[in-house]
Amino acid sequence: MILVADNLQITRHSVADAIRHQNPDTLQAIVRAMEAAGAEAIDLNTGPLNRNAAPQMRFCVETVQAATDLPLLIDTANPLAMQAGLEANRKVAVINGISLEPQKLASILPMAVAYDVDIIGYLLDDRSQMPPNQDDRMAIALELFQHCLTTGLRPEQLIIDPVIAPLIWQDGLQRNRDLLEIIRRLPELLDFPVRTVAGLSNLTTGQKNPGLKQRLEQTYLSMLASAGLSWVLLDIHHHDTVTSARICRMLLKDGVFAWDTGSTMASPDDHDTLST
Amino acid sequence: MILVADNLQITRHSVADAIRHQNPDTLQAIVRAMEAAGAEAIDLNTGPLNRNAAPQMRFCVETVQAATDLPLLIDTANPLAMQAGLEANRKVAVINGISLEPQKLASILPMAVAYDVDIIGYLLDDRSQMPPNQDDRMAIALELFQHCLTTGLRPEQLIIDPVIAPLIWQDGLQRNRDLLEIIRRLPELLDFPVRTVAGLSNLTTGQKNPGLKQRLEQTYLSMLASAGLSWVLLDIHHHDTVTSARICRMLLKDGVFAWDTGSTMASPDDHDTLST
Repeated sequence: MILVADNLQITRHSVADAIRHQNPDTLQAIVRAMEAAGAEAIDLNTGPLNRNAAPQMRFCVETVQAATDLPLLIDTANPLAMQAGLEANRKVAVINGISLEPQKLASILPMAVAYDVDIIGYLLDDRSQMPPNQDDRMAIALELFQHCLTTGLRPEQLIIDPVIAPLIWQDGLQRNRDLLEIIRRLPELLDFPVRTVAGLSNLTTGQKNPGLKQRLEQTYLSMLASAGLSWVLLDIHHHDTVTSARICRMLLKDGVFAWDTGSTMASPDDHDTLST
Repeated sequence: MILVADNLQITRHSVADAIRHQNPDTLQAIVRAMEAAGAEAIDLNTGPLNRNAAPQMRFCVETVQAATDLPLLIDTANPLAMQAGLEANRKVAVINGISLEPQKLASILPMAVAYDVDIIGYLLDDRSQMPPNQDDRMAIALELFQHCLTTGLRPEQLIIDPVIAPLIWQDGLQRNRDLLEIIRRLPELLDFPVRTVAGLSNLTTGQKNPGLKQRLEQTYLSMLASAGLSWVLLDIHHHDTVTSARICRMLLKDGVFAWDTGSTMASPDDHDTLST
């Protein structure tokens, strides 16, 4: 399970400020802190559309890639910004993402072929809504996969995000139990070991108690890992959640177990060494 | 998932002392502390055979049941002690347990019928060894189930313990990944919603770092819960692990999610209120 930091979001004041004032130092300091905290990929979320979306995305991708070699998930619904980001990319980029929304299928999906990059497909319908039913979500996976093949992608370019529901939704518990089953069943449905990704912070939307929030994240993350999740988007500065993710990897890896976890696994009581 | 406290073990000095000196006060204080910490059932493990096994077990069952109404798992390989415990039982008792060992099938299994109590069956072979292979473990489940039916048990009296392997075993990781799959597959194999139980402390045998030990326990427990485990044996005074178990239940229960977890769920940072 690869840890994707979701900290580079324009909804965060410091990030918005750095992008607005085209301040590379602030942005790069944020990126270096994320990498130090254990990020193995970075989600770059430039938020809602605006007139400067394309040049802003170019600035972001260039600035971030000057500071790190980590894979970059270009996270925007704006096709111009997506294209600018992919043009600027000099390392590993991933398109984040598409749903069955016709506009996204028409404008963003072909970029995965044109730029030969991986693409995240959300199990959301043609209005980017999540159907309540597990079978409907599986049907969307099949339909997304067909669109990818028709557009000329190799199957392994698709990464599926089954979309975690906020627990506070009326049927949030059921949807998130279904999601574990969906992750388990997707490889059989699509007949290849399709990768999956999920954004963990969705789970606790609305929860203020940081202790409970992180405990819920950690517990559900263990369930996701056990179901076979490939990538997780998370707040990389939630040290306890990052520790949980590493412990999941200790338990789920092949080979012989080692207590001596070396530099990849600190004592859970020792937060400092987690960021080495 | 029901929390079974494994703290009443004769390997613990205070427990051994209380039993040897037939000191009900000490034993009952331990029991009350377990119940206060969240125990929903108690495993009473009186250890290796000795000449006084039967009267000691009688003393233990009477003493414990004078202090609590919680179900009691009578955990001994000594048929005389088991019988004494079941004779003394005035509340809910569970036999813990049998394997395919012929002596246990002959002497202990029939007591489940005679006393009409549930019984734990370990997925261990006729020498009480764990076969390395997942299919062999599933075959043992079928064989155990057949012995139960032949002996006259109702199917739902059987609770299966697939036996957690110590991670330090050469193939410990593989066995414990298999175990998650076994828990998922057992209801289909036996064609009824068979209950399962697992002893969590086995996982970290040999690990001295209490922080890492508990983090491993918590993470694997989330995976077990998600696979459908019915009962877990654990150190009920591992507050963080108990909190994890409760968070698993929050995530896996039916109905609508509630942040207001009331008396059953304290803030994870608030250990004191966990024991209310």
